[in-house]
Amino acid sequence: MRKGERTRGAILDGAWRLASELGLEGLTLGRLADELDLSKSGLFAHFSSKENLQVQTLDRAAERFSEFVVRPAIAEQGGEKRLRALFERWLEWPRRVRQPGGCIFVAAAAELDDRPGPARDRLVALQREWRATIARVVKRAQELGEFRRDLDAEQLAFELHGVGLACHESVRLLRDPRALERARTAFERLVADARARS
Amino acid sequence: MRKGERTRGAILDGAWRLASELGLEGLTLGRLADELDLSKSGLFAHFSSKENLQVQTLDRAAERFSEFVVRPAIAEQGGEKRLRALFERWLEWPRRVRQPGGCIFVAAAAELDDRPGPARDRLVALQREWRATIARVVKRAQELGEFRRDLDAEQLAFELHGVGLACHESVRLLRDPRALERARTAFERLVADARARS
Repeated sequence: MRKGERTRGAILDGAWRLASELGLEGLTLGRLADELDLSKSGLFAHFSSKENLQVQTLDRAAERFSEFVVRPAIAEQGGEKRLRALFERWLEWPRRVRQPGGCIFVAAAAELDDRPGPARDRLVALQREWRATIARVVKRAQELGEFRRDLDAEQLAFELHGVGLACHESVRLLRDPRALERARTAFERLVADARARS
Repeated sequence: MRKGERTRGAILDGAWRLASELGLEGLTLGRLADELDLSKSGLFAHFSSKENLQVQTLDRAAERFSEFVVRPAIAEQGGEKRLRALFERWLEWPRRVRQPGGCIFVAAAAELDDRPGPARDRLVALQREWRATIARVVKRAQELGEFRRDLDAEQLAFELHGVGLACHESVRLLRDPRALERARTAFERLVADARARS
């Protein structure tokens, strides 16, 4: 059982790397079997369908995202400190947790937006959860009196998410050496505007 | 010759619609021939290669983007008015100029970022040009004294682009009915911060 879990985890990590390059639609059981040098029938026993493999690949990436980005940030004391850790770890995520084709969630958003099905449904749930996580951290900063009471936490989550998307595109597509600096400048402006007037 | 140009334009519009759904990699001469009910050899005479078709499809979309978004905005008087028109028309663009799979530039950015070649090169040039267009309009507002002198126009272009990306994802993936409202709120905050202190 434990060996089975480890094998499953290793397969999903391979699937995730592949999907970051080829897209989730390019992630077929045959292609993954070739990549990992496993039998297609063995993979089929684990995942039974391409859709199931897609959903579990997204879940695996979300689990690692939670471990690398969300949990360490939430462990920080204070609202603004948490938000800052969340943002910084998010910027690092596509590089620090190896995804050769860039963040799988960004790639999947563009790929799946017009493809109804279980993978799209899962991605929507994960993206909503991510924005809700940012908003919760913002609300915590409001409760602690660090951020203004009249701040719209969901609006700030929307804007921060946009900064992250612009940064990801600037790094991956434009290879802009100033992308991270620009993202951090945008973050500081958003936080300055959010802070309680003293 | 004029008939040839029209045919070419009609083919490229079909290619663009198809690419917005299937991605530029999914845009093969065979698939396009099926879609438009043309012969593959006829298409091959027009485009000679898949890469050439991809590049020309991006150019066609960029031409329409310029017609629908950029030129009418530039025709406005005043810097802030131009920026506002640019932003509003950009938000409308994926709906008003029919692209069943959403804005082709957003989809292509995620798809091509790790695929070196002529299509990626063209997309990078077009994206740089788009950000430079925003920055030019911002600089115009600075010259007219509407926006602060010490404003970083490229930074504002980066942030506005991020607002657009977040909005596109919120509309297309999350089907968030408040997406446009959120994008406009973000825009107003950016502009308020950019205005010259009086």
